[in-house]
Amino acid sequence: MPEISFTLPRGMKDIGPQEMAKRQWVTDKILRVICRYGFQLVEPSTLEHLETLEAKSGPTIRDEIYFFKDKADRNLGLRFDLTVGMTRMVAGRSDLPEPIKLAAIAGMWRYDEPQFARYRHFYQWDLEIYGTKEPIADAEIIAASIDILEELGLREYEVLISSRQLVDGYFGAIGITDQAQREQAIRVVDKVRKTRREELVARFSEIGVKDKTLGKVLDFITLRGTPSEALARLETLCQDALFQTGLANMKKLVHALESFGKIDKCKLDMSVVRGLDYYDGIVFEAYDKGGEDIGAILGGGRYDRLGSLYGKHDLPCTGVAGGMERLFLSLERAHLIPESEAPVKIYVVAANDTVRSHVLGLVQRIREAGVPADVDLKNRSLKNQLQYADALKIPYAVILGPREVEQQLVTVRDMRTRQEQRMAQSEFRNWLARLSASNM
Amino acid sequence: MPEISFTLPRGMKDIGPQEMAKRQWVTDKILRVICRYGFQLVEPSTLEHLETLEAKSGPTIRDEIYFFKDKADRNLGLRFDLTVGMTRMVAGRSDLPEPIKLAAIAGMWRYDEPQFARYRHFYQWDLEIYGTKEPIADAEIIAASIDILEELGLREYEVLISSRQLVDGYFGAIGITDQAQREQAIRVVDKVRKTRREELVARFSEIGVKDKTLGKVLDFITLRGTPSEALARLETLCQDALFQTGLANMKKLVHALESFGKIDKCKLDMSVVRGLDYYDGIVFEAYDKGGEDIGAILGGGRYDRLGSLYGKHDLPCTGVAGGMERLFLSLERAHLIPESEAPVKIYVVAANDTVRSHVLGLVQRIREAGVPADVDLKNRSLKNQLQYADALKIPYAVILGPREVEQQLVTVRDMRTRQEQRMAQSEFRNWLARLSASNM
Repeated sequence: MPEISFTLPRGMKDIGPQEMAKRQWVTDKILRVICRYGFQLVEPSTLEHLETLEAKSGPTIRDEIYFFKDKADRNLGLRFDLTVGMTRMVAGRSDLPEPIKLAAIAGMWRYDEPQFARYRHFYQWDLEIYGTKEPIADAEIIAASIDILEELGLREYEVLISSRQLVDGYFGAIGITDQAQREQAIRVVDKVRKTRREELVARFSEIGVKDKTLGKVLDFITLRGTPSEALARLETLCQDALFQTGLANMKKLVHALESFGKIDKCKLDMSVVRGLDYYDGIVFEAYDKGGEDIGAILGGGRYDRLGSLYGKHDLPCTGVAGGMERLFLSLERAHLIPESEAPVKIYVVAANDTVRSHVLGLVQRIREAGVPADVDLKNRSLKNQLQYADALKIPYAVILGPREVEQQLVTVRDMRTRQEQRMAQSEFRNWLARLSASNM
Repeated sequence: MPEISFTLPRGMKDIGPQEMAKRQWVTDKILRVICRYGFQLVEPSTLEHLETLEAKSGPTIRDEIYFFKDKADRNLGLRFDLTVGMTRMVAGRSDLPEPIKLAAIAGMWRYDEPQFARYRHFYQWDLEIYGTKEPIADAEIIAASIDILEELGLREYEVLISSRQLVDGYFGAIGITDQAQREQAIRVVDKVRKTRREELVARFSEIGVKDKTLGKVLDFITLRGTPSEALARLETLCQDALFQTGLANMKKLVHALESFGKIDKCKLDMSVVRGLDYYDGIVFEAYDKGGEDIGAILGGGRYDRLGSLYGKHDLPCTGVAGGMERLFLSLERAHLIPESEAPVKIYVVAANDTVRSHVLGLVQRIREAGVPADVDLKNRSLKNQLQYADALKIPYAVILGPREVEQQLVTVRDMRTRQEQRMAQSEFRNWLARLSASNM
């Protein structure tokens, strides 16, 4: 027998019962918002052809993902987000009335260096709207994102909004016209929150952004304020055509967010650019105040060109995704996830071996009444059965002995107060119905 | 730009909105049973060290799974079931009061040849009880399995039960004493349902089981009947010690199933052996009558030795798993999954462009009332908005025009009957509350 490693691969983890109960609580709330907004849940394939994954970002994506050859020598990769798969799914269909509103909550894999609250397999929730260029769709994505945070109980967060049209237009207007240089600049901006000013200056210099241009870039990316303040400043900034298109779209977005009643949580902030290559319109991120070390708890934007990579021209898209693990951190810090209760409400106890079969019948009747119930599976003594119920923090024991069986009674024991009460069958049924209604 | 393949790798599939709605319906019912029985939901890691996966079945498992080297040259594999990971999880803990009842509903990967209703990534539900050798635990696993099928509305199924102790004991007693030969024989028996008699005889001959021994094997594996009939026949069959242990356990199991009220759905059937190497006690499978081509819709058994492979001696386990995809087939044939309704109940329509912002406010109020609602995201005409609502089979449109806004009214249109009704705000709120209560 070879020596067996029963540790997990680096960056992997199991989800235990307590964490899973929390995940279910969070997922349930996200699903409610998804449902209210009319998004339909899907799940794209876990494995893709490597080319499909590379389409978005080129072969450099290989540095960040799990990929391998299968036994038929195909290059496959594990999905690294949900957007690629969902976009490929929609691009392959021509029969769906647009707009198409899809959602997914599922796991993905990235071969990142594991760090605080980051694993190599993790979950995201994701909302996407396909088939409309209107900024109202971006507004709806932001409104749904805000409602997800609100539904979870978060209040101290802000949504920072920008536009790649504004940023690209402005950068072009001040002389950063080379596409490669602009992309490098975007990547530097994307890290601005984690970079000290001197380092920022150095990194811009490296890519040839310096002197007056650098001053303008730094002024621009620190432009931040309420939507009305920021729009007033943007208004006078630049006459570039792309910038003006971005400005018109941003005004429409702000107007729609006002109509949705969501503007109070939003700021415009030109330092938000999103690292990924495929964004080309409105972009946004939400941060939990006081949890900035966690990073953005959600982020998204418009990516009208991605659909054409998967064979469907004219498939404008806008969407949002949030990491479940980071969200848990925010929620736990704010004590918003309720402590998970004991999954079992009633433990049915056999006072001695003669009543074991009656106990099995009784536990089934309790379960049929919809109350989670359990029973001794180890032939233990009365005392040990009660100890197990105590260890599992089960609130009630229902004890059956020969006398109870003979007289068709049960003894209900409150495990916290240790008070016991004998009940006839009909009384017990009523008690169960009350428990079922109150507890679950 | 390279030519991009936007097909999926062989054996992979996306889960679209209709299928996902069905999955949610099924998953919700399974979760209810899981909860009533006091199982706690977990999810083991998706990726494991290859050695962890090989521990159960040896290196031959490589033929059936996805495995690869990661960038740090580690041998990793995608999980091929949930039992291995759950057992590794539990074996790594010594702080949990036993028995430990865990459940999982999650995806896994196998590099099988794709065939009817079988993909290379698929989902299973899985229940496991760790820490008790008592047949009552096997009975509870079978009872929960039956309740899952019942909760889903299935009635025409049967649970076939056997025991590896009975099979191994009997095979030993009739002279199949060589361990390798016995394992080969088990593998032949496991395929008996798919094998014609002549072929069966040929395959047994190949492994040296012939003449009188073969006759006894064929008699034994066709032993099948109600638990009382079958127990009576087994009683007289064989004095082998392992067989007698198996018989005593089987009697306890049958007795517990009677007490749980589940015996009517069960038969004993000695041809059930389960292919996997790790079973060593009671084994069972359920078949949907009339759906035998689908194969077993669930199966499981006892595997007391697996825990020790992952470092925990004396960790008896018993469990069950069922494939979600096969279950869907059975449920769809029996028309048990309700047709999915339109996810959106109300489409809020702008009669013209002047009221667009009012429409956004209204759709939010409807959503806040808990009713799934949607709104035009493409700036379409009244007519095109109503056509979209029709295409999506949304039951109601709420139409807002300048007059409605001025008089604080809304027009509610039943999209099926095309009848319209004008309502004041308070009346509309009551109508919404009724819709919310009736529909969802």
